[in-house]
Order: sequence, then C-alpha cells, then structure tokens
Amino acid sequence: MKKNAFYAQSGGVTAVINASACGVIEACRSESHKIGTLYAGLNGIIGALEENLIDTSLESDQAIASLRYIPGGAFGSCRYKLQNLKDNDDQYRRLIEVFKAHNIGYFFYNGGGDSADTCLKVSQISELMGYPVQAIHIPKTIDNDLALTDCSPGFGSVAKYVAVSTKEASLDIASMAASSTKVFVLEVMGRHAGWIAAAAGLASQAKGEPPHIILFPEVPFEREQFIALVKKTVEQSGYCVVVASEGVSYANGDLLSESIGKDAFGHKQLGGVAPALCSMIKHSLDYKYHYAIADYLQRSARHMASKTDVEQAYAVGRAAVNAALAGKNALMVSIKRDASKPYAWSLGEVPLSAVANQEKKMPQAFISKNGFGITQQARNYLLPLIAGEDYPPYQNGLPYYPRLKNTLITKRCTQWALC
Amino acid sequence: MKKNAFYAQSGGVTAVINASACGVIEACRSESHKIGTLYAGLNGIIGALEENLIDTSLESDQAIASLRYIPGGAFGSCRYKLQNLKDNDDQYRRLIEVFKAHNIGYFFYNGGGDSADTCLKVSQISELMGYPVQAIHIPKTIDNDLALTDCSPGFGSVAKYVAVSTKEASLDIASMAASSTKVFVLEVMGRHAGWIAAAAGLASQAKGEPPHIILFPEVPFEREQFIALVKKTVEQSGYCVVVASEGVSYANGDLLSESIGKDAFGHKQLGGVAPALCSMIKHSLDYKYHYAIADYLQRSARHMASKTDVEQAYAVGRAAVNAALAGKNALMVSIKRDASKPYAWSLGEVPLSAVANQEKKMPQAFISKNGFGITQQARNYLLPLIAGEDYPPYQNGLPYYPRLKNTLITKRCTQWALC
Repeated sequence: MKKNAFYAQSGGVTAVINASACGVIEACRSESHKIGTLYAGLNGIIGALEENLIDTSLESDQAIASLRYIPGGAFGSCRYKLQNLKDNDDQYRRLIEVFKAHNIGYFFYNGGGDSADTCLKVSQISELMGYPVQAIHIPKTIDNDLALTDCSPGFGSVAKYVAVSTKEASLDIASMAASSTKVFVLEVMGRHAGWIAAAAGLASQAKGEPPHIILFPEVPFEREQFIALVKKTVEQSGYCVVVASEGVSYANGDLLSESIGKDAFGHKQLGGVAPALCSMIKHSLDYKYHYAIADYLQRSARHMASKTDVEQAYAVGRAAVNAALAGKNALMVSIKRDASKPYAWSLGEVPLSAVANQEKKMPQAFISKNGFGITQQARNYLLPLIAGEDYPPYQNGLPYYPRLKNTLITKRCTQWALC
Repeated sequence: MKKNAFYAQSGGVTAVINASACGVIEACRSESHKIGTLYAGLNGIIGALEENLIDTSLESDQAIASLRYIPGGAFGSCRYKLQNLKDNDDQYRRLIEVFKAHNIGYFFYNGGGDSADTCLKVSQISELMGYPVQAIHIPKTIDNDLALTDCSPGFGSVAKYVAVSTKEASLDIASMAASSTKVFVLEVMGRHAGWIAAAAGLASQAKGEPPHIILFPEVPFEREQFIALVKKTVEQSGYCVVVASEGVSYANGDLLSESIGKDAFGHKQLGGVAPALCSMIKHSLDYKYHYAIADYLQRSARHMASKTDVEQAYAVGRAAVNAALAGKNALMVSIKRDASKPYAWSLGEVPLSAVANQEKKMPQAFISKNGFGITQQARNYLLPLIAGEDYPPYQNGLPYYPRLKNTLITKRCTQWALC
C-alpha cells in the first residue's frame, strides 16, 4: 500500500518557501503511482500535533503552480521546537498517532537550523518507536546560516532585495546630500551572521560607490572607529551610506539595538540598530540622517525575487521527494556550487545530524580588512545568488497572489492541545 | 537668437523625477531649432546661484533615454527656498547675472509645493527686474499634496511600492501569527497628508484582508480606540497589520514620533511612529510585533515603479518645454483625470500663484467612517495610479542605473557663495 506524505513549513518564512512547496507537491503528483496523498501541516509541525492536516490533493494543478510565485508560507509556519526525545516523548507518541492514523510514511520539513533539528528527531522515531517515517529536510533560511549547503533558498532573494534597495536609496541620498541629508542607514536582518548585510555590498559596483560602511555581527562594533569613518566618508564623498545587521554588538556582546534607552513606558526602547547608530551620528557629528528598517519587507519581497533562488527553492523541494522515494532518511537536500564563473550548481544530500543546530557565519575572508566591507571573494560568492529576475504576474497594478483552499481533513485521533 | 534653457530638480527626489528630466531634455532636443542649450543646475537652484551648470548637450541620446529608468535626482536636488523678493533681492540679482551670462530664457523647475513657490518668484524676475525669463513648473512629489493637479508624478510609484510591500509583508505575518508575531506595523512617509498610507489600503482586495488599520495625519490619533481595534483584529483574524503615516499626531497636534530637529524649510524631521505604536501595543496587549520603516526605500524604488507614473512624469517634462515655447510663463503643468474606469488622463496648465505653498490633504470622503481605512471612492482614485509595471533593465542581478557625465560649463560670472 502506498504511503501518504506530510509537508510543513517552519520558522521565519521567505519569498520563495512556497516555491519549495510547489516542488514537493508537483513531484508527489508526478510520482502518484508510488506516493499517496500529500498532507500539509497547518502552521508547521503544530499542524501534525493538532491533526490539522491540509489535503493538498484538493488544490488544482494551477493553484499549486502559483505557489512558485507567492511569498509567505501558504500553509502557515511556526516557531516551535520539539523537545528532546528523552525529556518528553509525549510529542513523539502523538506524532506517531497522527501519522499512523493517516498512513503517513514520508515527512518533509522545510526550514532552517532549528527545523533541521526537529526533522532529525522525527527521523529517529522510526528507530526508537518502531514506526517507519522517512524524514527529509528541505533547506530554507534568509539568514544563509545553514551548514553544509553552499547557500540556502530564501537567501538569494533577500540578498537581491537588500542590494537593489541599497543601490536605489544611495542614488536618493546622493542627490540630496549637498543641502540636506548626509547619512543614510539601512538596517537589515541577521542576528548572528552577516550574510544579508554583506549582500548590500553588491550595490557598490565601482570603487568608492555606496554602501560605504557595512556592519556585521561577526565584527565587534567600535564606536569611535565607526564615527571617524562616517566623518571621513561624508567629507570625501558628500554623504555616507551605512548598512547594518540587526545583530551588531559591542565586543562585550551587548547588542547596539538594546542601547538606545527607554520608551515612554520606561521599557527598553524597541529594536533599532539604525536609530542607535543615527543617535551616535547626530550626537558626535550633527549630520542630518535618514534611516530605514526593512524588517519583513526584505524577506517577503517576492516582487523582486532572484531567479536563481526561485529555481533552487523549487529544485530542493522536488529532490526531497525523490530522495524519500529512493528510500533515504534523515538527510537534508543541499545545494552544491560546481563553479562560480559562470555559476553552476547541483544538488547534494547531507546527513541531518551534521546540519542540525549548526550556524554558518561569514568566513573571515569575506570581510574586508577594516571590518567595514566585503572582499572580492565575497562578491564572487554572492553575485550568482542574486542573478536573474522572476517577476510574479500582476493584476491591476498588484502582484497576483491567489490563496489556496487549504481544506482540513476530518480528524481521526483524539483531541490534543499544545502545552 | 535662440535662448538657452535651465532645468533643475528640487526637494525630495522620487523614483521618476529623472523621467521628467528625460522628457524636458528630449523635448528640447527635438525643438533644437527654437531652443538652445539646456543647462541643468547641479543640486537644484543652488546650481544656478553658484553657476554650477551642467551641459546636458554633452550627454548621448542613449544616456538621456536612460534617465527614464534611473531613480534619485541625476543632477542633484536641494532643499533650498529662495527668500522673498522684497526681503532680499541679492539672490534674484544673482540669478539674473547667471541667466544673462548664459543667455538663459527658459526656467524649468521640477519639484513640489515649496519649489512651485521658488518657480513663481523666478517668473516674477521678468516683471520686477526687467529680464525676461519664462518659468514653468514641473510637478513632482511623492506626497501627492500639490494642489490643482489630479496627482503628482512620483506618487504613483511610491503608492505602488507601499501597496505591494503591505501585501507581501501581510502574507508573511499571516503565516507566522499562530505561534509568533501578531502585529506588523509599516511606517510610511506623509507628514501632513495621508495619501501614501492610503495607498497601502489597495493591498486589501477583499473584505477583511490586511491592512486592518491605516493611520492618517488627517485623523487625530486616539490611543484607546487604536489599541481596542488592534486587540479585536488579532482576536478575529489572528494577526493585525497597521500602516502608519509618519505624521500621525494626537488631537492637540503633538506628533506620535519624537521630533528630532528641523530641516531647511523649518519642517520637523520625523522618525519613529512605528516604534511608538509598538511600544503601546507591547504595553497594553503584550503581543509580539515587528515593524518596518520604509523611509527612502519607498521613494527610490524604481525597480517597481508604476508605469502610469513613469509615463506621466515623462509627459509633464515634455509639456513644460512646449508651454515655454508657446510663450507661456508662471504656470505648472498639471495632470487631469478625464475618466477613472477606464482611466484616462490628459495634461493641463494651472497658474503658479494658485499652486505655490498649497497643500492638498486627503478628502474626508476618502477616509472610512471609523477613521482607520479608505473608502471605495479612494480606491477608485488610487488604483489607476499604480497601474502597470515598467521594470528597469538588469545586469548581473542588479538594475542598470548608469551615471551621466554631468560636465560643468566654464563659469563666466564672479564667485558667489550661499549665505
């Protein structure tokens, strides 16, 4: 008897996570002689625990094809990490209960490092609890911090967004600087790894072009040095463009974003590496400044996704299904770089145990000597990942992002609530 | 003898102000039997005062054509307002000195309400100081607050950016809300008029779709009412998307954001409505939130300009030259709406005296009864302005935004410094 499959999205969503879903579902459909119904978890693994399973077979081929260009998580994502098997096996027993009830033998989990850990734990159910589940991880993270894959789907598109936005905003401030704004700060995501901030460096296509300063979480922030460089840049170029990772911190580990004082309620003031930097600039140099915080805009900007990223996101989804059908388990589909110029990539497989809970930071060789920019090596790495445009269809001036029906199947198990 | 012409960009730049420059320059080139050299002011009117004149005839036709898709101000803009003629006529004498020295008889000024005032003053030189200059104003402002024109070039593109970004970020938070972020706040530009925030409302294409709350400068902010609506929305929809104008203020006029100084026009410089709102939400409801501040990204986002906006920006540039050659003076080229469905527009002319220093706020009829949304009438007005895509060319994953040579001509006048 054919086994059914389960697919879920996990962690922060991206502009292309649905392209991976599209790959998974289309592969299952083309292998329907080997694989049964594909259920999607409503809100990630929580959907499996609560038995909220979406029957993807009720969606038309056209609806599934549209997933390739819809940002966000079409089935809902979650921030929820399974506990350790030995600490609490209730969750795992529950998963088996639900999987058994719906004849689920394939588990496809689409997420980052934490999710790889969840996927690994599910793969262990098979051995530890005697229920056969093949668990395949589909990489996804805008942070690009997954180990053992050359890049992570989701990163190329946020990298493109940040590079393009930096280029455009730089043209804006360049034309205002003579009589107005002198400093522009763009805050981008990246708590522990500076990959996204690094991508802003691609906006600089000739020596001296903005961004002039990039701040990475990997480089301890030194205020005097930063202020001196802003001053020198404004004096030389007339203006200064700064791109800062949200995770920039001092040598002692204190985050800049927690250093901007208290709000009207006496609480620590919220978020904001950019305003923290602008405060310093105002205080020390009294330059007029502007700042932007891209936040969710950067990771949902499907309207300017990288074509390379979309293709890779789709491909890892398809490959996960093929790996499962080949009898494999406890692995992550990886992206391998076969060449940089011209860029060539292929897919690989890595054991989940080697990926889970790892964090890939920027190599030292990618950061320029003064700590405020990227090297040619970083450019060679980053450039192919933002290559190509893949615009969504538009209707009446807006991208056409249709919604799926997301029909839940009838429950067969007992009620279960997250604790 | 043919007269030469002067063109300058003023105030905050937009994604399409260079499309207007393209229109002006291409019209001058096609009327080269009637009009001499077109000089562009380096950094706006300051370029005329300092005799920093760019010879646009040294740019190739191809370079001029590329202005149609380059954001920012290709010749530099300024925040600089001429003083009143009767208070200080030094500046005007200087302008005449420069215009005379270079045989300039046409003055094209590309800006918003403040710039219309400058343009009007220049047009008065002719009468008051006996030097003939025809001054034509070319409308531009992302704020859409120019009077007597149906819309202002620059607005349609920022409106599209804000609508698309709101739609995309809403899909993101919708997929995270079950176990994580419940509220997303997007801060957009608009000090006194809520046109840009209103455009976010277009992202909602069916009842109940986000954005759930829009905050306009036109509507006094009431905290209790706002918090109650956020709570109700999260309870009903699972999450809440808020779009707020930077100029949102309390009934007594106090801005929600901290006032952090004044710009050259004496306007307050703003930043931080979004964190102020999130503070309140945290304090009263303890929901997890995210916020984005679009700032310059919204007005420089040529990568997703509105095709309608690009066409109008180009057309008003060409029309300004034609008006000047028809012997007209002291007017602004306007955009007239001939029909909304299907949208049809044409160009008109309005006297500068009626436009200068006016500010067009959102009509009451565009704001929904509860003050937190837009009406169908607003949609009918806004929708045609974001219609159509007009992508720039890309090279290696980035938009191709070449730079002009911007060659300054040899000075003929005495040195002059801004006081």
